[in-house]
Amino acid sequence: MRNIKLTIEYDGTNYQGWQVQPKGLTLQGVIEDQLKRLTGESVHLMGSGRTDAGVHARGQVAHFKTRSPLDVFTLQRALNSLLPPDVVVRKVEEVDEGFDARRNCKTKIYEYRILNRSLRSVFNRGHSWHIPQKLNLGKMRKATQRLIGEHDFASFRSAGSPTRTTVRRVIRADWKRRRDGLLIFEIEASGFLKQMVRAIVGTLVEAGRGKLTPEDVQTILESRDRKEAGPTAPAHGLFLKEVKY
Amino acid sequence: MRNIKLTIEYDGTNYQGWQVQPKGLTLQGVIEDQLKRLTGESVHLMGSGRTDAGVHARGQVAHFKTRSPLDVFTLQRALNSLLPPDVVVRKVEEVDEGFDARRNCKTKIYEYRILNRSLRSVFNRGHSWHIPQKLNLGKMRKATQRLIGEHDFASFRSAGSPTRTTVRRVIRADWKRRRDGLLIFEIEASGFLKQMVRAIVGTLVEAGRGKLTPEDVQTILESRDRKEAGPTAPAHGLFLKEVKY
Repeated sequence: MRNIKLTIEYDGTNYQGWQVQPKGLTLQGVIEDQLKRLTGESVHLMGSGRTDAGVHARGQVAHFKTRSPLDVFTLQRALNSLLPPDVVVRKVEEVDEGFDARRNCKTKIYEYRILNRSLRSVFNRGHSWHIPQKLNLGKMRKATQRLIGEHDFASFRSAGSPTRTTVRRVIRADWKRRRDGLLIFEIEASGFLKQMVRAIVGTLVEAGRGKLTPEDVQTILESRDRKEAGPTAPAHGLFLKEVKY
Repeated sequence: MRNIKLTIEYDGTNYQGWQVQPKGLTLQGVIEDQLKRLTGESVHLMGSGRTDAGVHARGQVAHFKTRSPLDVFTLQRALNSLLPPDVVVRKVEEVDEGFDARRNCKTKIYEYRILNRSLRSVFNRGHSWHIPQKLNLGKMRKATQRLIGEHDFASFRSAGSPTRTTVRRVIRADWKRRRDGLLIFEIEASGFLKQMVRAIVGTLVEAGRGKLTPEDVQTILESRDRKEAGPTAPAHGLFLKEVKY
């Protein structure tokens, strides 16, 4: 069996997330359907992890096994001609039999976009969280520093999601301000709990509004209690940017 | 009567263009409806000019007369809370009684976006023309130079559109290449004929493909015959960027 790695960009607006669901359109489902069509096989596409409903990706990674003789170049062209306009396969690579998109992942990078200005934007509307009230970027940056390193992130996950351990290592996390009013948060970690980035962003925004101090954010982290953290930021500002192996 | 000037941004994807039509959603119609609601008057909104179905705007300008006592700040907030997510009023100003958005316009600036790389992009898909074949930017720039100045642009307009004169003055026009593969064409002129920018872009792309020389573009211009020019570029890459008074 050949093992094929895909790097995928998608606009998550019209999807119920990555993973196949009993009902509703999913990224995994839409791509698997076209892979089945191209290979004639009952392909199983394994992603590096799930993305929630409405979350976008610039570089989601997935792999599948196939006996198809199609070369990677033809596979990419054929897939992209069949996939809908909101999904595109950026790269197709043949990889070692042992490569596993989920298990071999070393770190992931997420990006979160906030449009922080009084006017909303029609062009960014599906891809950023519009916050008209002025946010204090300095305070957000200071609060962000408290999250870097290896911590138990139980305070920053979707309530009740089961997982072996809630310890994750955040390698870097910071904010950039763009001239057009976009605040861009980038975070790289060894792994992420369900809705972890959105819970972190929701909490850091509270710091930017002056409702939480950097010390409060530290206390929330140490509490290991989701109820202590800020609200979950909306899905449509979040992008899975890169998966590293 | 007070005279109010609006500066408007819109995503034209879901509209039958600016001007009210017998059927279909239009920008003028959608904004007039909310102005009527806010003022209780039968407002007529006059734009600086029409934009075609699918064309976007960053700075369309329009004016209307009203007896409403609403201050401009309240009017803007109220309008933006009522307008759909793909329309936003960027500025509301009270202007001289004599101001006319169409007649007083000195120049307009349009922008056209081409995504020139092999892969399509899910995030730019509604706001650029995807051309996977490599375009020669140097040749496009040389051909563009032939269009600058006062010329009869009859070769670059929608067939059969009636107008007093087809002479227009192009003040500047040039291309920029962005690192992400976007080619951005910006053109400022004293006025534009129907579909003029799209006919120009379609023709300049033929120069970029090596099918027309700069001299050919000059010959097309001098022929004053629409059939000589290249195809009309798609509407969804075009933005009305600014209207100057």
